[in-house]
Amino acid sequence: MVEKMDDKNVRRIMLYVAYDGTEYHGWQLQPECVTIEGKLNEALSELLREDIKVIGASRTDAGVHALGNVAVFDTTSKIPGDKFPYALNERLPNDIRVVDGKEVDITFHPRKCDTKKTYEYHILNTKFEIPTKTRYTYHVYHQLDLEAMKTAAKLFEGEHDFTSFCSINSQSESKVRTIYSVDVRKDGDEVVISVTGNGFLYNMVRIIAGTLVEVGKGKNAPSEISNMILAKDRSKAGPTAPAMGLLLAKYEFL
Amino acid sequence: MVEKMDDKNVRRIMLYVAYDGTEYHGWQLQPECVTIEGKLNEALSELLREDIKVIGASRTDAGVHALGNVAVFDTTSKIPGDKFPYALNERLPNDIRVVDGKEVDITFHPRKCDTKKTYEYHILNTKFEIPTKTRYTYHVYHQLDLEAMKTAAKLFEGEHDFTSFCSINSQSESKVRTIYSVDVRKDGDEVVISVTGNGFLYNMVRIIAGTLVEVGKGKNAPSEISNMILAKDRSKAGPTAPAMGLLLAKYEFL
Repeated sequence: MVEKMDDKNVRRIMLYVAYDGTEYHGWQLQPECVTIEGKLNEALSELLREDIKVIGASRTDAGVHALGNVAVFDTTSKIPGDKFPYALNERLPNDIRVVDGKEVDITFHPRKCDTKKTYEYHILNTKFEIPTKTRYTYHVYHQLDLEAMKTAAKLFEGEHDFTSFCSINSQSESKVRTIYSVDVRKDGDEVVISVTGNGFLYNMVRIIAGTLVEVGKGKNAPSEISNMILAKDRSKAGPTAPAMGLLLAKYEFL
Repeated sequence: MVEKMDDKNVRRIMLYVAYDGTEYHGWQLQPECVTIEGKLNEALSELLREDIKVIGASRTDAGVHALGNVAVFDTTSKIPGDKFPYALNERLPNDIRVVDGKEVDITFHPRKCDTKKTYEYHILNTKFEIPTKTRYTYHVYHQLDLEAMKTAAKLFEGEHDFTSFCSINSQSESKVRTIYSVDVRKDGDEVVISVTGNGFLYNMVRIIAGTLVEVGKGKNAPSEISNMILAKDRSKAGPTAPAMGLLLAKYEFL
């Protein structure tokens, strides 16, 4: 992108991208793998007849879904930002849809600015699985104690070192993040955990969800969350809940 | 089933079956096609080591989904009715789940008794498609007038000759059916049409949905519904809405 930036005709475009992650090896470009980023690069390069490489805001894992992940790219094309969804959706598979587009400042970088992201984790809490929900929920047979989960959820809020709630494979130097809110609600036969924060460590929302499910099952008291955070030890928190329950729901730039 | 009925050890079992219809050629057994009925027969025959042929309550079309369609079969097995879901789900593909089972009277026939069925038709009313909803909704870009749809919906209620709202390929002799309720509600970015009746003609709910969408778009006034019903002419009603938006939600035997 640096070369292009010297050209005064270059514009930076931001896209909001929704996808069903079931069939993809996650967001990030990988050799020999089908990824969301790869499909976007292909569609954009074909449309603009330039070699386009997008920069994504969140590198969601294999199987994780999104209503609005963010990607930016530079182009000398004169297509207005808001026309990109129409032009790209014709070239993208059905399970990826560009839902918004606009021109942004040429210096805008989606991973280098203050953001507010909301992830939702969807749990299907029924005796048997429901096939029309299998792709987008984690099925838990054990009836969950919603009040216990709500109490536990509040203890994640605020600025904390989230080492206990981060994959040991994380490469982030600082494990301090700020969570603005964790809400647990019942939505029909689903329990939905909604987490809003300024940024998330690798697997963080899935570990929070897995830990809250254990609280809901009565394996841990809600108050244990504070000790888990203080321990700064991944082995003290609950398991990583499976990818298909996770949805990147909302992305705001502050 | 007639042969088996003479045997005093024979029991009739009723199953409630949920499925994602996307990958199936509908419910009904067809040569060379993958169907829900076919998959159930295979799983039951393998489990019970008998040749089992279920009788289904509703022969849903290709692509239509269900939370609880009903199937019965006869067996000399002593497996309690409520254990069938566990035994069958191990043998069924992920997109079919038996969610309930019980023994019923040996004379019980699911298509020869009074029932109350509820279908839901799900419309995604957004500017762009949302990939995590594509399999289970009909996408309508045009913003729908919910109040007009609600007014129109009420005119379907009651006992009517539904010839105008029935595929011309229907083989039913009488086109008279009773609709107990048609409700239209907003559920987030979806418009959900919920239709409860004592029975439905071929494509009836999808034609009602297609007609209500045209009312929602302003192409027809709500009051036109009464004239369409009186016309007893399929060409006077709206189009047949696509299969993927339709869900057989509830089945009650009265």
